[in-house]
Amino acid sequence: MRDVAVIGIGMNRWGELWEKSHRQIWTEAALEAIDDAGVDHVDAMFVGCMSGGLFMGQEHLGAMLADQLGMGPIPGTRVESACASGGLAFRQAYLSVASGMHDIVLASGLEKMTDVDGGAATYALSTAADQEYECFHGITFPGLYAMMARAHMAKYGTTEEQLAAVAVKNHENGSKNPLAQFPMKVTAEQVMNSVLVADPLRILHCSPITDGAAAGILVPLDMAKKMSDKPLVKVAASAQASDSIALHDREEITWIGSTAKAAEDAYKQAGCTPKEISFCEVHDCFTIAEIMVTEALGFFDRGQGGKAAESGETALGGTIPINPSGGLKSKGHPVGATGVAQIRELVMQLRGECGERQVKDAVRGMSQNMGGTGASTAVHILERV
Amino acid sequence: MRDVAVIGIGMNRWGELWEKSHRQIWTEAALEAIDDAGVDHVDAMFVGCMSGGLFMGQEHLGAMLADQLGMGPIPGTRVESACASGGLAFRQAYLSVASGMHDIVLASGLEKMTDVDGGAATYALSTAADQEYECFHGITFPGLYAMMARAHMAKYGTTEEQLAAVAVKNHENGSKNPLAQFPMKVTAEQVMNSVLVADPLRILHCSPITDGAAAGILVPLDMAKKMSDKPLVKVAASAQASDSIALHDREEITWIGSTAKAAEDAYKQAGCTPKEISFCEVHDCFTIAEIMVTEALGFFDRGQGGKAAESGETALGGTIPINPSGGLKSKGHPVGATGVAQIRELVMQLRGECGERQVKDAVRGMSQNMGGTGASTAVHILERV
Repeated sequence: MRDVAVIGIGMNRWGELWEKSHRQIWTEAALEAIDDAGVDHVDAMFVGCMSGGLFMGQEHLGAMLADQLGMGPIPGTRVESACASGGLAFRQAYLSVASGMHDIVLASGLEKMTDVDGGAATYALSTAADQEYECFHGITFPGLYAMMARAHMAKYGTTEEQLAAVAVKNHENGSKNPLAQFPMKVTAEQVMNSVLVADPLRILHCSPITDGAAAGILVPLDMAKKMSDKPLVKVAASAQASDSIALHDREEITWIGSTAKAAEDAYKQAGCTPKEISFCEVHDCFTIAEIMVTEALGFFDRGQGGKAAESGETALGGTIPINPSGGLKSKGHPVGATGVAQIRELVMQLRGECGERQVKDAVRGMSQNMGGTGASTAVHILERV
Repeated sequence: MRDVAVIGIGMNRWGELWEKSHRQIWTEAALEAIDDAGVDHVDAMFVGCMSGGLFMGQEHLGAMLADQLGMGPIPGTRVESACASGGLAFRQAYLSVASGMHDIVLASGLEKMTDVDGGAATYALSTAADQEYECFHGITFPGLYAMMARAHMAKYGTTEEQLAAVAVKNHENGSKNPLAQFPMKVTAEQVMNSVLVADPLRILHCSPITDGAAAGILVPLDMAKKMSDKPLVKVAASAQASDSIALHDREEITWIGSTAKAAEDAYKQAGCTPKEISFCEVHDCFTIAEIMVTEALGFFDRGQGGKAAESGETALGGTIPINPSGGLKSKGHPVGATGVAQIRELVMQLRGECGERQVKDAVRGMSQNMGGTGASTAVHILERV
């Protein structure tokens, strides 16, 4: 397979965007990526979107958005894997370039979540879990992650202070990201006194409901060398794995098996170890998720993720900066777009374009994007060439 | 890219399957394909499904079905392109093998459509059209295709008798398919006296609402030669194209541009002409669709598809047998599964396993699967090796 580079990135300002349609949001991000890449066409496009049907009453997004971009008859393909839809769309785009099928490919993600009421949004999100065996009994995502948090606390002594430290750090980073939905800083005290959603998770442990899109342009590395005068960023690894969709089917619920498997494959592809990763964007849909994911990625031993967050190891100046963008927590979480926005942050960091939130000496970035409670994970490693 | 063969196929008996869950339907098809291929594992899987959210309240189907199959942690990816979801899922599976990323890959499609009422099903299907510019004004799919039919009749003199001939022929073929949802034969008189849905389309011009799944196993051709004692079938072409999602944006609505473009690419890849295709499975969601598609694929001149159907050219013994399986019309149309079921028919015909509906001397089969009113199309050509 051919080496692949990401030569363009785009993202709109995320938030509650009632004044914009899903077409408009997506087009802003896609055109920015095309402009950033300096290309005048693409050969194919992929879009990650979790639930076009339930959130927007619009499926068939691949063809619709290719049309909207004025680039038909190019193939437009929608990929879905709940909150990992963006990561998988990027992976399919990568595969289509690496294989030699296409040369210039647009990878994108989109979700317009705030045009339905809160109950409908909660129901739509619950379709990422097992409807027949989990949701039927009334549980929704804060409840599922609350069970995982309680189990992690019971097994490893993880504390509410450690959970809060993740939120404080991500909002600190997000305050330096001009496109973040909630760029305000928060204190541990504010987190721990915020409204309880599902014990022990409070509102400031949860990622928000967001409208947003993100996009990237992929080309063969050899072509990129001739096209772009920006620092070159190549895809060093693209891995994907799955796990049981229902929590009750897992051997233990304090471990994200799909992330561990995808990371193992990714390290092998890139020929590196966790210690050689400069920074990582992870899927902090809830604060406990970030803690568990940093363990599954091999940055910390099992059960040590909470302590690491509390001690500052995952802060911008720490040993392994986690979520310099602000993460899902502060940047927002339009579910289908999240995985592609992580790639955007990787490219910006590796190009040295992140200003106040720039990770020093960033040469190799990792992204981890997962669906549901971790039934699917996409892990990518990008390197400065 | 590597040559790819399809060495296993599976499909359940389609129909209104209230007694079975979506897991069960899909697993029947997937296990049959795995058994037919004689493999004990797969390296990755793809599933085409149009609207898991609106029809079943279940998204995240890639991971869920990998889990259901007991084959986690393999990557499981859902692909969506309305009624072309299955065709695109097969194409992504093909790409993942052709690229060298995976060796043994399961391509599948699923839709469970009858667990919601008729109004909800009609709404779910309408998300394949342009919600903001078409459906908002009240139109649904029979209405969209009725407009296309009226335009085709006005421009080319296509008649109601010719439309009826498509239904008669597909039910005749379907009567020889033991897995068809509606295997009864119909007469032209019955079609023309059936209930009017959207003038000129009557109920017997429309494909039904169906629960069903289909699956196939893809491996590199070199591997297939060592593994299988069945006649070998290779993928000679895999093409995909898009067009405007809304009818009003097209230059003319009597022509399926995405199908013409995908077919052009497919003929080029396979190095053949329409005359060298032994038979073709096309997307006859409505009888007028089959007529327009046979023109766009180059089997007949523009405007001549209706006459060709009426004169028997597309019947089993005709110059180019169309829909030997019975097509969507008689076999059923579980939208996400349809494109994969077409591939199954191609493989069965090329292996000579079709009994009463066998096309004589079948050496090269084509499938055409489209979304909405043709905003997306996947075209595949399979050949006996």
